[in-house]
Amino acid sequence: MAPQLDGYFQKVDALSDAFIERLRQAVAIPSVSSEYARRPEVVRMGHWLADQLTKLGATAELRPLGKQPGTDLDLPPVVLGRYGNDKNKRTILVYGHYDVQPAEKSDGWDTEPFELTVKEDGRMCGRGATDDKGPVLGWLNAIEAHQAAGIDFPVNLLMCFEGMEEYGSEGLDDLINAEGKKFFADADAVCISDNYWLGTEKPCLTYGLRGCNYYSIEISGPGADLHSGVFGGTAQEPMTDLVRIMASLVDTNGKIQIPGIAEQVAPVTADEEGLYDGIAFNMETLHDSLGSKTTIFEDKKSTLMARWRYPSLSLHGIEGAFSAPGAKTVIPAKVIGKFSIRTVPNMEIDKTNEVVCRYVEDVFKKLGSKNTLKVYPQHCGKWWVASPNHWNFTAAAKATERVWGVKPDFTREGGSIPVTLTFEQATGKNVLLLPMGSSTDGAHSINEKLDKRNYIEGIKLLGAYLHYVAEEPMN
Amino acid sequence: MAPQLDGYFQKVDALSDAFIERLRQAVAIPSVSSEYARRPEVVRMGHWLADQLTKLGATAELRPLGKQPGTDLDLPPVVLGRYGNDKNKRTILVYGHYDVQPAEKSDGWDTEPFELTVKEDGRMCGRGATDDKGPVLGWLNAIEAHQAAGIDFPVNLLMCFEGMEEYGSEGLDDLINAEGKKFFADADAVCISDNYWLGTEKPCLTYGLRGCNYYSIEISGPGADLHSGVFGGTAQEPMTDLVRIMASLVDTNGKIQIPGIAEQVAPVTADEEGLYDGIAFNMETLHDSLGSKTTIFEDKKSTLMARWRYPSLSLHGIEGAFSAPGAKTVIPAKVIGKFSIRTVPNMEIDKTNEVVCRYVEDVFKKLGSKNTLKVYPQHCGKWWVASPNHWNFTAAAKATERVWGVKPDFTREGGSIPVTLTFEQATGKNVLLLPMGSSTDGAHSINEKLDKRNYIEGIKLLGAYLHYVAEEPMN
Repeated sequence: MAPQLDGYFQKVDALSDAFIERLRQAVAIPSVSSEYARRPEVVRMGHWLADQLTKLGATAELRPLGKQPGTDLDLPPVVLGRYGNDKNKRTILVYGHYDVQPAEKSDGWDTEPFELTVKEDGRMCGRGATDDKGPVLGWLNAIEAHQAAGIDFPVNLLMCFEGMEEYGSEGLDDLINAEGKKFFADADAVCISDNYWLGTEKPCLTYGLRGCNYYSIEISGPGADLHSGVFGGTAQEPMTDLVRIMASLVDTNGKIQIPGIAEQVAPVTADEEGLYDGIAFNMETLHDSLGSKTTIFEDKKSTLMARWRYPSLSLHGIEGAFSAPGAKTVIPAKVIGKFSIRTVPNMEIDKTNEVVCRYVEDVFKKLGSKNTLKVYPQHCGKWWVASPNHWNFTAAAKATERVWGVKPDFTREGGSIPVTLTFEQATGKNVLLLPMGSSTDGAHSINEKLDKRNYIEGIKLLGAYLHYVAEEPMN
Repeated sequence: MAPQLDGYFQKVDALSDAFIERLRQAVAIPSVSSEYARRPEVVRMGHWLADQLTKLGATAELRPLGKQPGTDLDLPPVVLGRYGNDKNKRTILVYGHYDVQPAEKSDGWDTEPFELTVKEDGRMCGRGATDDKGPVLGWLNAIEAHQAAGIDFPVNLLMCFEGMEEYGSEGLDDLINAEGKKFFADADAVCISDNYWLGTEKPCLTYGLRGCNYYSIEISGPGADLHSGVFGGTAQEPMTDLVRIMASLVDTNGKIQIPGIAEQVAPVTADEEGLYDGIAFNMETLHDSLGSKTTIFEDKKSTLMARWRYPSLSLHGIEGAFSAPGAKTVIPAKVIGKFSIRTVPNMEIDKTNEVVCRYVEDVFKKLGSKNTLKVYPQHCGKWWVASPNHWNFTAAAKATERVWGVKPDFTREGGSIPVTLTFEQATGKNVLLLPMGSSTDGAHSINEKLDKRNYIEGIKLLGAYLHYVAEEPMN
């Protein structure tokens, strides 16, 4: 029996200005977790969020995580919230983060990044608008709209909002593992709203993520940086060796050159073959979000498979070399190349590390260099794939159809949200990724935005999802 | 007839503490020309220098050079000095620079970079000690010691000290060309003390320099930086193309892979073959200054030829990619690779630019990439070779033997001092490079130093050179 949601929806519309004002207040706190000088702002954001929850009648605990390793700096607290404690209701655990990526107007923003600017076309621009302050506030707004409409909240809500997501989620895994059978013990399922639609028009539910193995290649030789006039032609230069190794990892069309990677990838099944055609995704949208037509493939299916179910290798940059504008005739003494591999079923972290390091060592050996090589993984996170047939997904699919008038696409993502796997393992429950924003939101870029439509309808969606969750039979 | 120099030498020794104090005052002014915020310190340094000259009875003009192109910032003035105006004496034009490279204690310095620290072993550590404040003050100290000893100064001295050498000598060429037949008109020869001995024990006179063509390779594709999770595997990445091109330019043993470079290099003559064996240079000193044994060659002759008379290609770094410590999963949208070629006789700038750009374009074309390539020279400076048989060199050789007790090596250098060629062309006179410091001074590195011995004996050398210049017959 479909839940009666009209009253709730009307109240969300009626309160939309207040909800935008709440987002404006949140964006105004520059909670940049990677900048030590702004750590107090991250903490302030956590307190603001807990305060908002308390005002809505939820409990909110600011859980300290201790010092950031290697520093004297306190980690921002995790906000652990609970709204409702009715044994006759299902309990849903939701996760989000209240910290944001760095942003400066001078990076090229059209507007002040920490002032929410609502454009005539509905774009609400500001750092954190879509990643992840909008979605986090979505849960709070859903509570408020229920209260204003006088509608009983359909589930117990457990909330876990962290302040270090953009800087490695330091300390969070330990907390989740420790609370899996304690604070999170009641959870019947988990819902995370921290990803995006595949395009700009059709909602989706996400059941898979790629993992990520991130590597450093260090090459050192001279005792200090050298002047190329004095030493050019007489010393073996670490940069020369490094770019030769980096050039051997992947080609222009994204083909990974390291033996032993492709061999680990799960074969495409007959079932899967038909999966991609129905997905609302087209190359024009991809070209839009890419800002160019420099795609590897020309067709939807190859592109989606390359993003979701095949590994990819990206070269991110070089530490220790000259990186400023202008000209400097330096021979860098020690350079560190950074690259990562997005991993997919059935790749294993250890096996992948082994073939990567062995390959890099082999290529270096063939160079015949007297320089010194070190290659090692910086961090590794496993891929994740959930069952999209679980009632958690069925409920979300019905809610999506109710709010947006279309059945959602069931998608995977090319990126990693490591906490997804942690929640699954710590609670033993199904995890759903339920995005609010769209593909053009520019989460980590300049001019990050959340469309007003996605925010307001997204609030309806989160509430509706909880109502369908309450009704969905166990499976 | 050898000049009587004993009185002068004694006075230099007697005044050595005062001369070190003068250097201490100069090092204490952080005249970093590349940092806009420190531009006032560069200007202050120019005024301090002019003031020192005036106190010694020289004339000193602070010549403005206008605004730095593209900024609202005044260029530091050139100090134009004259000491003596006797038509019966030769006139020597000397050049140096009073600006320095950037330096921060946190770069790894053992001592404060802008406090001259005199160690027990005679090392005088501080930014600019050897490059080029020590040598510049050498001329002032020579004047003072003559006055204190009551010895007639043997020549008229014209001085040109600039404050932008470490940041491209902006505006200087125009000034030199404009003053070639005016302020510099009387010059009979030019002497520049802004380079280094080949090793640590034997003085040298330098008659050749390599040129430098500095290139940028820009590759762009996406409209903005991308997240490798979202786009990895679906977009052609500019970094992949760039490292493939950079890897194609030079190999681990320094062999330039670009056709049309080696073909321009002057063949080794029979005369030249014997030139290298006598030079005081050994691989141990090179290993010391390199801080490692990662040399391309194992023998002196190959190494000196590689530094002096063959071109070299160094990869300096990449602008626009991730260059900080840690991990960032960015796909950079636009990356600019920087490299330079040290040029030698008979390479031509235009011809070299043509073969370099064509080669880079060819390599890029073969990648089959949809990204966009731009390759262009950032700046080019020609190589320089002077006649070491000119009286300017003969005088310096005699002075060296008198002060240091050995005949100097006649050397070339692998680096570029573009102003050398400018002075030669503007005045039409012979230019001599007369170094004060030694190979281990670390001019552009951390812990830059000038040995006390090289400073004090160097002051004697500069004075003695002027005495021999006064006596040397025209040739």
